[in-house]
Amino acid sequence: MEQLLETRAPDTASTIVKMVFDSWNSLLRDFDAVLGSVTDDQLQAQIAPNKNRGIYLLGHMVVVHDDMLPILGFGQIMYPEINEVFKAPDNAESKIPSAQTLRTYWRNINQVIAENAAQLTPEQWMQRHNSVSAEDFARQPHRNKLNVMITRTCHLSYHLGQMKWVQ
Amino acid sequence: MEQLLETRAPDTASTIVKMVFDSWNSLLRDFDAVLGSVTDDQLQAQIAPNKNRGIYLLGHMVVVHDDMLPILGFGQIMYPEINEVFKAPDNAESKIPSAQTLRTYWRNINQVIAENAAQLTPEQWMQRHNSVSAEDFARQPHRNKLNVMITRTCHLSYHLGQMKWVQ
Repeated sequence: MEQLLETRAPDTASTIVKMVFDSWNSLLRDFDAVLGSVTDDQLQAQIAPNKNRGIYLLGHMVVVHDDMLPILGFGQIMYPEINEVFKAPDNAESKIPSAQTLRTYWRNINQVIAENAAQLTPEQWMQRHNSVSAEDFARQPHRNKLNVMITRTCHLSYHLGQMKWVQ
Repeated sequence: MEQLLETRAPDTASTIVKMVFDSWNSLLRDFDAVLGSVTDDQLQAQIAPNKNRGIYLLGHMVVVHDDMLPILGFGQIMYPEINEVFKAPDNAESKIPSAQTLRTYWRNINQVIAENAAQLTPEQWMQRHNSVSAEDFARQPHRNKLNVMITRTCHLSYHLGQMKWVQ
C-alpha cells in the first residue's frame, strides 16, 4: 500500500504549480509583514555604507514585478515612469516617488499578478512566456511562464533577506 | 505551427526539475562567488548592530543544507555537532568552528547533494520526502522531494541577499 501511494504521480503540473505558488505567496506575505513594520523614515536610511536604502529595494521590487505583467501576458507595465530609476543603482540624488506611493504601487501590482495568475491552468503555466520566441521555446521548453514565477520567487526571497535587515 | 509548438507539453516533470535545478545551481554559484570574495575577518564582523555575522550566515547555511541529506534520503547529517549552535540566534560568545572549517563543510555538503541529486529521476523528485508520512503524502502530493529543493532554493537566495551585504 505504501509503495502504491509513493509511486502514483497525480497531475504533476498542477501539483508543481501549487508548490511554486505556495513559496511565492509565503514570501510575499513575509515581505509585506516586514515592509509593514518598517517606517518611511527607516526606508530612507542605509543600514551601512554602500548598502541600498530600503526605499530603493521597494522601488526595485515594484519594477521587477511590474515587468512580470507583459512577460506573463498579464497586461502592460503599470508604472513605466519609475522603471529606469530603479534599474539603475541606488542614488540618494535620484528623483523617486515617496515611500507611500511605492507601497501603493507594490500592493497594486501584486494584486494584478494574483488575479491574472489565478486564471491560468497548469498547462498554460508550462507554455512559453513572452520574452522567448516560439522557435527557441520549442528547443528550450523550460523557458515557460512557471519558470518566470520560479526565478521571481528567488528574486523576492533575495531582497526579503535584505529588507529584513532594513527592519 | 506556432500554436502547435505552444500547446505541446513535453515531459513536464523533467522540464520542471531542470527549472528548479537551474535556479538552485545559479544561486549556489552566486553564493560561492560572494563567499569567495569575503575574507575570514569580514565574516567575523557585523555590518550593523543586531545583524547576523557572515560567519553565522555561513554556518546556518551549512546546517540547513546538511539537514537536506536525511530529508531527501541522501544519507545522514554530516556535521551534527554544529547543528544546535547555528539554529540558535547568532551569539558572539558561542563556540563555533573557524571560517576555514565552515567553508570546507559548505563545499562538502553541496558536493554530496549534487552527487545524489544527479541520480534521481524526475519521477523520484515527485515522490515524498522523509519528513512526511506516506498517509499525509497521499493527501498532499506537493510534499515531495522537489518541493524541498524549491523551498531550500528560496532559503539560499534569502541569505545570499544578506551575504551580498556582508561583502
